[in-house]
Amino acid sequence: MSTHAQIGVTGLAVMGRNLARNFARNGYTVAVHNRTASKTRELVEEFGGEGEFVPAETAKEFVESLERPRRLVIMVKAGEPTDAVIEEFAPLLEPGDMIIDGGNAHFADTRRRERDLREQGIHFVGTGISGGEEGALHGPSIMPGGSVESYDSLGPMLEKISAKADDGAPCVTHVGPDGAGHFVKMVHNGIEYADMQLIGEAYQLLRDVAGYSPAEIADIFRTWNQGRLDSYLIEITAEVLSHVDAETGKPFVDVVVDQAEQKGTGRWTVQIALDLGVPVSAIAEAVFARSVSGHAELREASRHLAGPSARTLGKEEAAAFADQVEQALYASKIVSYTQGFHQIATGSEEYDWDIDLGKVAAIWRGGCIIRAAFLDRITRAYEAQPGLPSLLADEGFADEIAAAQDDWRSVIATAVAQGVPTPAFAATLAYYDSLRAPRLPAALTQGQRDYFGAHTYHRTDRDGAFHTLWGGDRAEVSA
Amino acid sequence: MSTHAQIGVTGLAVMGRNLARNFARNGYTVAVHNRTASKTRELVEEFGGEGEFVPAETAKEFVESLERPRRLVIMVKAGEPTDAVIEEFAPLLEPGDMIIDGGNAHFADTRRRERDLREQGIHFVGTGISGGEEGALHGPSIMPGGSVESYDSLGPMLEKISAKADDGAPCVTHVGPDGAGHFVKMVHNGIEYADMQLIGEAYQLLRDVAGYSPAEIADIFRTWNQGRLDSYLIEITAEVLSHVDAETGKPFVDVVVDQAEQKGTGRWTVQIALDLGVPVSAIAEAVFARSVSGHAELREASRHLAGPSARTLGKEEAAAFADQVEQALYASKIVSYTQGFHQIATGSEEYDWDIDLGKVAAIWRGGCIIRAAFLDRITRAYEAQPGLPSLLADEGFADEIAAAQDDWRSVIATAVAQGVPTPAFAATLAYYDSLRAPRLPAALTQGQRDYFGAHTYHRTDRDGAFHTLWGGDRAEVSA
Repeated sequence: MSTHAQIGVTGLAVMGRNLARNFARNGYTVAVHNRTASKTRELVEEFGGEGEFVPAETAKEFVESLERPRRLVIMVKAGEPTDAVIEEFAPLLEPGDMIIDGGNAHFADTRRRERDLREQGIHFVGTGISGGEEGALHGPSIMPGGSVESYDSLGPMLEKISAKADDGAPCVTHVGPDGAGHFVKMVHNGIEYADMQLIGEAYQLLRDVAGYSPAEIADIFRTWNQGRLDSYLIEITAEVLSHVDAETGKPFVDVVVDQAEQKGTGRWTVQIALDLGVPVSAIAEAVFARSVSGHAELREASRHLAGPSARTLGKEEAAAFADQVEQALYASKIVSYTQGFHQIATGSEEYDWDIDLGKVAAIWRGGCIIRAAFLDRITRAYEAQPGLPSLLADEGFADEIAAAQDDWRSVIATAVAQGVPTPAFAATLAYYDSLRAPRLPAALTQGQRDYFGAHTYHRTDRDGAFHTLWGGDRAEVSA
Repeated sequence: MSTHAQIGVTGLAVMGRNLARNFARNGYTVAVHNRTASKTRELVEEFGGEGEFVPAETAKEFVESLERPRRLVIMVKAGEPTDAVIEEFAPLLEPGDMIIDGGNAHFADTRRRERDLREQGIHFVGTGISGGEEGALHGPSIMPGGSVESYDSLGPMLEKISAKADDGAPCVTHVGPDGAGHFVKMVHNGIEYADMQLIGEAYQLLRDVAGYSPAEIADIFRTWNQGRLDSYLIEITAEVLSHVDAETGKPFVDVVVDQAEQKGTGRWTVQIALDLGVPVSAIAEAVFARSVSGHAELREASRHLAGPSARTLGKEEAAAFADQVEQALYASKIVSYTQGFHQIATGSEEYDWDIDLGKVAAIWRGGCIIRAAFLDRITRAYEAQPGLPSLLADEGFADEIAAAQDDWRSVIATAVAQGVPTPAFAATLAYYDSLRAPRLPAALTQGQRDYFGAHTYHRTDRDGAFHTLWGGDRAEVSA
């Protein structure tokens, strides 16, 4: 048995297989292993010409085929299957070896696994990988956590197989210790949910209010893709909207059942944000919007509910409205990213990860689903002010929102009046208006809480906690 | 040692003490116990005249003072303290005895504890208790889970000490097995968050747009409290808003720091709703609004953000606007309760609890924070149609929203235009418009997911899952 493979991949479903091929195509000798050995043989038969593969039938063979320190990538389902594979391989490894989990693990699981394996001297590298099947093969955005030592050994290989941004920079960085990589990947997915929901709302407005056809809307998205909204998701939106169903001759989007599915990382993002006390209303509304769409029975029972009719605009009005929608989409997108980066910053502080937010934006510029020109702007904002408390505190973004806000408000007011649901547009604007409000009704909330639960309140004019004797003479006492 | 106490309470902080007094005042002999015995002695010294107390210094004494089957109420902090107390007492109990947990436990913990104790033959009754200190003493709304057998023994006592609705019905029912009681209490608290946020937004609109003073707004709330919004929270809102700070002579609400705190059950409600796939956007926005208010640094960094000025209305316009706000508040409230009851219905199905939604609304009519005339309407809706898929499917509620919707939309459009944050108003309207929409952009979302991740989609015209070869000739294949 040769012991010269530089990296090994176990779990050869489509993501694992493509990642193994990506390593091989980049000149690495790749050990490959799968629970059912036929998949291993298939890979080598079909793609053996792309590079050097070392197929292994057993776990022992697989581990022995790797050079030391070993780099073992596991590409299996998140949750119990990941634990099972770790339990299988860990006893075969030696101190200094690395297990790289490239699945969509929950960062809390990654933290637990990293801690457990660290005791055995094994580096556990929980790694977010974004870009789907194509990304895995041609270059994904890679978000590794784990020790600095493991990144020293692994980083150069990851940089080679990763996507490259337009300026040539590899879309990978050492995100931070233990669960930092999977945490950032989770928030990436949450932001992706919000991006898709915002695009969906823009589409519905262009359809229902402006009266455009899907093909016309595709053209509008193509135009937007030439400007500041330039991004993969805008690009593929145009592709999906311009596609015509061969069978019926109808626009493809009209033939698809309007019930969106989800795999769970959006939901995790919101649940963790709630634990961290970070308001991520755009992501939450995106997750809820998918749930609403899937509740067929509830929707059926609600078809009769009263609503206004959307008023279709004339041709010139429609074009002007489309421009306003672009402003609204851009402003909402800034706020959505503000919330997402706030979550990363808060997670980083909570878990002592010391995450460089600008670098996170930078490695999302290629390979992943939310890749966009816009991310360059975020990187520059954090480079200019590393301690930026919020993206909205960046002068450039603030100026853009200031310029967009009249249209943003007008579009949402139109949606509200005409009955087109725009939950994420509205949530982002409400967040924006809440942040800039000189006073919030939270003072009333605290007053109510003190009234019914003696939860106390603070005063604006001096320190301390106070309680009003609501049931008595309403005098104030120190609490 | 006498063994005649009908019920025992351990944990004599204010909630436990008041609950013990409530039992005693209703003629029950109550064993009382606390980790530090001085609290037990204090209770008997101070309130011994209210009824029959049997003070116990040790756990053993406490248990021995109870008649069989024993009814032991634990009133300690949720989480580890609750487990510690259970571990202390369970070994002293016999099959058929009951442990009643009246704290704010997470329903998943309650399920675990119930399962563990059932193996020892002990009934564990996780019980939501709402109404704060005053409720505990004078009659709370009580939401017990656990076995039918335990309710047979315990129910009559709980009915006696509970709040009574206006029609005299006790505000307690056997909610369902194991964690059902704590689950329903959790959603109750979530709904309470939403109610408070909606009231806060109404207040802010009346203040910023209509230009009313807190005292004038208090009067408006008092008027609303005579109508369909009649509720405890509206009542105390008027009290808080009319209160003047003695020290400064300013309205109390202007002296309170506008940062709302939270204890966690609102957050739980949203997290569990996400697990269950139930959109609870009103509760989520309420939780987020409290978080936003507490991020002082972020708010400070956002003060400079551009926004429109709220335009203060003339006197007559203001009065008309206030009427519109009442319509908006009522419509949003219906939607918020629709979401909350959807969560209870889904939880009930998920965990086989068979919860009677009409009865849940009925026991919230007294004692608890969200008590309101409105709840009678919900009870009647579910009585009329036990299988009602959603409150919005009730004709009465649908009619009221139909009548309110023009004003509802107008108020939100005004808020959006004038920069007054109304996240929960907007979220509830978006939910309403989403449910009644003939088509949602979810079809586009599914198309995008199929494009970048081969996640497949369904067709409107026939069964099956399909995938378009986006990277190839764009033919459709069965998946």
